[in-house]
Amino acid sequence: MKDYFKVDEWKIIEEGFDPHYNKVAESVLSLGNGRMGQRANFEDAYSGENLQGNYVAGVYYPDKTRVGWWKNGYPEYFAKVLNAANWIGIDVWIGEEQLDLAKCEVISFRRELNMKEGYLKRSFHAKTAAGKEVAVEAIRFCSMVDDECGAIKYSIIPVNFTGEITITPFIDGDIANKDSNYDEKFWDEVHKNTADDISSIQLRTKKTGFEVLTAMKCVLLQGDASVDYRSTPILKEKYVATEIKVEAKQGEVVTLIKYATNLSSQNYKAEDMAVRATELLATISAKGFDIMLAEQAAAWAEKWKNNDIIIEGDAKAQQGIRFNIFQLNQTYTGEDDRLNIGPKGFTGEKYGGSTYWDTEAYCVPFYLATAEQKVARNLLLYRYKQLGKAIENAKLLGFKDGAALYPMVTMDGTECHNEWEITFEEIHRNGAIAFAIYNYVRYTGDEAYLDDYGLEVLIAISRFWSQRITWSADRQQYVMLGVTGPNEYENNVNNNWYSSTIAVWCMKYTLEVIDKVKASDNAKYDALATKIAFNETIESGRFADIIAKMYFPQDEKLGIYLQQDGYLDKEQLLVTDLPATERPLVQKWSWDRILRSVFIKQADVLQGLYFFEEDYDLETIRRNYDFYEPRTVHESSLSPCVHAILAAKLGDVERAYQFYLRTSRLDIDDYNNDTEDGCHITSMAGTWMSVVEGFGGMRVKDGMLSFNPLLPEEWGALSFQIGFRGSLLNIRIAKEGTTVKNLSDTAITVILKGASQFVEAKNEVFVKA
Amino acid sequence: MKDYFKVDEWKIIEEGFDPHYNKVAESVLSLGNGRMGQRANFEDAYSGENLQGNYVAGVYYPDKTRVGWWKNGYPEYFAKVLNAANWIGIDVWIGEEQLDLAKCEVISFRRELNMKEGYLKRSFHAKTAAGKEVAVEAIRFCSMVDDECGAIKYSIIPVNFTGEITITPFIDGDIANKDSNYDEKFWDEVHKNTADDISSIQLRTKKTGFEVLTAMKCVLLQGDASVDYRSTPILKEKYVATEIKVEAKQGEVVTLIKYATNLSSQNYKAEDMAVRATELLATISAKGFDIMLAEQAAAWAEKWKNNDIIIEGDAKAQQGIRFNIFQLNQTYTGEDDRLNIGPKGFTGEKYGGSTYWDTEAYCVPFYLATAEQKVARNLLLYRYKQLGKAIENAKLLGFKDGAALYPMVTMDGTECHNEWEITFEEIHRNGAIAFAIYNYVRYTGDEAYLDDYGLEVLIAISRFWSQRITWSADRQQYVMLGVTGPNEYENNVNNNWYSSTIAVWCMKYTLEVIDKVKASDNAKYDALATKIAFNETIESGRFADIIAKMYFPQDEKLGIYLQQDGYLDKEQLLVTDLPATERPLVQKWSWDRILRSVFIKQADVLQGLYFFEEDYDLETIRRNYDFYEPRTVHESSLSPCVHAILAAKLGDVERAYQFYLRTSRLDIDDYNNDTEDGCHITSMAGTWMSVVEGFGGMRVKDGMLSFNPLLPEEWGALSFQIGFRGSLLNIRIAKEGTTVKNLSDTAITVILKGASQFVEAKNEVFVKA
Repeated sequence: MKDYFKVDEWKIIEEGFDPHYNKVAESVLSLGNGRMGQRANFEDAYSGENLQGNYVAGVYYPDKTRVGWWKNGYPEYFAKVLNAANWIGIDVWIGEEQLDLAKCEVISFRRELNMKEGYLKRSFHAKTAAGKEVAVEAIRFCSMVDDECGAIKYSIIPVNFTGEITITPFIDGDIANKDSNYDEKFWDEVHKNTADDISSIQLRTKKTGFEVLTAMKCVLLQGDASVDYRSTPILKEKYVATEIKVEAKQGEVVTLIKYATNLSSQNYKAEDMAVRATELLATISAKGFDIMLAEQAAAWAEKWKNNDIIIEGDAKAQQGIRFNIFQLNQTYTGEDDRLNIGPKGFTGEKYGGSTYWDTEAYCVPFYLATAEQKVARNLLLYRYKQLGKAIENAKLLGFKDGAALYPMVTMDGTECHNEWEITFEEIHRNGAIAFAIYNYVRYTGDEAYLDDYGLEVLIAISRFWSQRITWSADRQQYVMLGVTGPNEYENNVNNNWYSSTIAVWCMKYTLEVIDKVKASDNAKYDALATKIAFNETIESGRFADIIAKMYFPQDEKLGIYLQQDGYLDKEQLLVTDLPATERPLVQKWSWDRILRSVFIKQADVLQGLYFFEEDYDLETIRRNYDFYEPRTVHESSLSPCVHAILAAKLGDVERAYQFYLRTSRLDIDDYNNDTEDGCHITSMAGTWMSVVEGFGGMRVKDGMLSFNPLLPEEWGALSFQIGFRGSLLNIRIAKEGTTVKNLSDTAITVILKGASQFVEAKNEVFVKA
Repeated sequence: MKDYFKVDEWKIIEEGFDPHYNKVAESVLSLGNGRMGQRANFEDAYSGENLQGNYVAGVYYPDKTRVGWWKNGYPEYFAKVLNAANWIGIDVWIGEEQLDLAKCEVISFRRELNMKEGYLKRSFHAKTAAGKEVAVEAIRFCSMVDDECGAIKYSIIPVNFTGEITITPFIDGDIANKDSNYDEKFWDEVHKNTADDISSIQLRTKKTGFEVLTAMKCVLLQGDASVDYRSTPILKEKYVATEIKVEAKQGEVVTLIKYATNLSSQNYKAEDMAVRATELLATISAKGFDIMLAEQAAAWAEKWKNNDIIIEGDAKAQQGIRFNIFQLNQTYTGEDDRLNIGPKGFTGEKYGGSTYWDTEAYCVPFYLATAEQKVARNLLLYRYKQLGKAIENAKLLGFKDGAALYPMVTMDGTECHNEWEITFEEIHRNGAIAFAIYNYVRYTGDEAYLDDYGLEVLIAISRFWSQRITWSADRQQYVMLGVTGPNEYENNVNNNWYSSTIAVWCMKYTLEVIDKVKASDNAKYDALATKIAFNETIESGRFADIIAKMYFPQDEKLGIYLQQDGYLDKEQLLVTDLPATERPLVQKWSWDRILRSVFIKQADVLQGLYFFEEDYDLETIRRNYDFYEPRTVHESSLSPCVHAILAAKLGDVERAYQFYLRTSRLDIDDYNNDTEDGCHITSMAGTWMSVVEGFGGMRVKDGMLSFNPLLPEEWGALSFQIGFRGSLLNIRIAKEGTTVKNLSDTAITVILKGASQFVEAKNEVFVKA
């Protein structure tokens, strides 16, 4: 699988067609613009293996399928990410033969994702069974400027014949999800229409009642000239198309430009969408494909200006990081505070819901440093607004008095995942939400956020912990029973060190913030305490008692924290003991075997040491790293980045580099054999962290940025941009030393390799290696 | 809920109609004959709350619905018990009004299950909205003699009017399961027919392709005279009926007799069933309802002769045990070795599959003592025949070299339950299957069974244990990680004492049996060892090493075995701390809360002390009992019987009595608020054990029966029959003493209260209390 795509600093290139890798390529080459997106499916028919996927942000289906023995407290539904109407389809018939690459001889084929300018280009030369040869080029994009629109330029050259070609651009709403039971379809037709030169179809999701209108307008060119074409409308159930017959001449290009728009009833009244679609299609078709594409390139140039990371001398590493940044920008733009960052973005339907703890643990740092402050703040407010539902959710599980448990998976604040070991027990997610508040305030200095929103969330979360933690009379300590830590290859364990650590940290931080808010605005504090009936004496007292008497599992002899009670009872194998044929474990081993094995899916103790590094000395971190790293299989995409940062911190630049490659090229190289389901979007923010926090050694301490650069042998130099409290810095780490360039109008003091450096506006400092 | 049914020694009586309890009554008053059965649904229409259920033994549906994250090694399907065609339906129209008790004034109502003779009688007096009054009596049964047939005698008297009554007996195959997703229907129509006076419909299950033909033949009487009636056939999709119009006279009874038959393609060629049904209906209708009913009573009398338990002076207790024995006999007759004892029998659709560890742990002892030896032997052979599938099942989970894991739930040897914590981890079931072999041989003395079948199963099971148990370098002992014990309110725990105990016992017993078989027939042993590639040196060595170095969790201070590692970390509450409003926990608490609580669903450590009582002194048993009993909520039907036996053993007759009442009246009194889903059939064998092993103190030691009688204060006397190695004994325990009567022609020596007693054929001994 590895090395399937060509290495290029700005592109992902598939050269030659291998049907076996088609679904992986469809994932990797996906397009999106924060509001809609799709997998790199073909426009023309393809009867080979593929996974159709068009997605509209925020549109989901509440699946109520039940199996097994239902548990009390389970959510009502599982939110499926919905496959929406296919707007890219263009059926092509060459005489009596349908163009279908699965049935042609593919003489040449190339698909490339242009990350610099944000489009997908596919070109091929194929020969049909009857011997007719065509050369096709298709370019398409989801517009970042007109973010409800997309456009396709589809060109065909008859290579060795002259004759009729039938081109049928269509919109097909008769689609299913791959993961639907009983082949259930999730969309009902509301209406469809072909009038003038616009065809549209409006569909409504079952149960949730979202409406999405998809419309298209097409232009035909022969050679370079636009031609009036004869077309026949085709209307079928949930399907609308325009059949165009062209007398094509050998060697002369025929081009169809398909302008399309996707409108959602989340943004419009359902009855207004048809008119709005007509306006939009008029606007973009008047602009024309080439101008739209130029605008797209400009919009991406603007993004790259702040986001780009340049790795010199290592094209593979360069391609990896750009791919990650590109996909993150395709998935979430920060412009709609109802949206969040789904783990598959617009690249697949796997995993229901759109918001996981990934957002807080992995994505917030990326947006803090690369986007306006309001983007990270919106991500925090998203959870603040859902606090009521988190309290409801905790109530369903038997918690009380305003304790909040944020959902593991959600679309709108309601829990929508239904496996007890995850939904009910993977509660460390609550800690990540508190940590993101801490992280945001540490980074931005926006302490007012705590007064207005942060403390209310923190108290609700600490209330949850204080109820979830119980007293062990046997130990005379507090314990946390029955949890699943970040390492999901353990379920329902007792005293997961990470969960206990973040829980106690939450309560400590809550107590600190109570003092801070009181000091900054006592009246505000009183109002909040009254609003949420916070009894400081009793509740803070309980928090403090737990902080003082919490049990944390550890092994004195090894000098390590134990992932959970009993971890050392396992057969102490290492990843190096595993034959390659048994990997990934999740695809080869039964669940019980995974659970009782020593193998770790993703950073768990190490995640805690990463978050709270200041509380542990370097030797402790090293001992734990040395113990757990060889037991970690990294079958979660969220794992290698944390290991990369820790390896860098411990000075092991070569391992950090290997982890970096793994995290940044996880999907391009299909490390875990699951990219065909979609890309791992949220972990891409982790890749960014592995560069900036790992090789850049960037931290925020006492309101100041600090860097501890470390450059892999393989790299000539590494540079990245960081926005921090009004300043914009470019950091360039080279073999000879590190340059911090202040691109902004505000002077700033940073810590570089432990020493304070004042960097004037529009100026730079250089420190030798 | 309690006391809803009237207390009667031979009947379960519902007097007056409470729609709220209808589903409970439908369960409790269910009928069956081992081959088919049904809930006590009304014949006439009922639009109020009800759960329709007609079941045909061995017919199931392989549900492939998926939710959540599928685990590697999961079975392909979940076997649903299928609701089959409704053959009892008789629609009644009084003039223009449909008779529907939900829409009538119910002046009187009575439903009674006659356990002595095996029929259900329902009578009521109702007034329609238009003021017409009818008195109805319906008697029906599933014939024990003609076990593919049932019959109904349905009589109506117009109380206050003369006029037309339309009676429409029907067969309705357009039924669903309550638990089906997307309202999926599981049956397709093959054909239907009305010809001469027989109506029939043949249906085929989707996917599994079972065919069931249901046919009926009806006879009409006015007064006592059979009348030729005008009838109109009605055929709809999956539905066939005969509409009969009758000019009914005030005060004169109109009676419809409906003869029905259910034939399954498991027993016939599908194409032969129609002819066979016609023959059967001819036979039974020639016999006539009254003779059929008399034969039914005689067949039940024969069963009661060996099975009955008489409790004098306590009608409630008497009713309880008879209800249990009655339902067991309705569910399984031992005549078809492809069948087994489903946990709901013919009383509901909950729980898929038909065979659980309940069969071995609870039912085998009942059949050993109350039926011919071949019945228990057939239950053992059922598993022997499925050994290949059990080995396959273990392979799917990564075990090798002939290790067998029997399924948690099955229809035919294939695992068909899909929750990882059960399917993959509740592996103690394997131990129960080995224990049943031990139990059977101990009881019957049939050691040849070990040579021919037993040892092969035992080695396969011990191989599984020896691979599932791992070495803890940290402890320098063997451990068993990641299991679910009998107490399903704990999942994925380490070192469940019960599982470890039964696993080690299995290996010990296997080593014993190896020696036994070698001694009895060395050539047979060699042949087996070759067949299954058993390497005695290595494998027996491994078993012995585990036996020597197994870790069993215990607490020195309390002097108890620990249910699992960490059990004492839990908040040590007692059941008495639980408010009634929080019970049953499974309906009130979320799963995580149940898991981390101290509360025990069913006997776990105590199950082990029950099975292996000879290995523990009485004080150890008492300390464990005193510790665990107050923490046990008995939310499994399989729990109170074991506690009853232990309480009796410990001399606590009052608690034993309370547990006995609970287990015997679990469904009648709806203790766990779930009888509406069906009755708990397998635990009924546990009730039998609680009487015979608890109050009777019956054990088998060194090939002899032994009794240690204990009579509850509330009882005048207790008597039961026991078949043992060719003898049939009646044991009567009275206040003044215990009588052992030998009903057979074979003399026997028994141990009574510790002393040996020789009981001649057709004679008795009496020992004073």
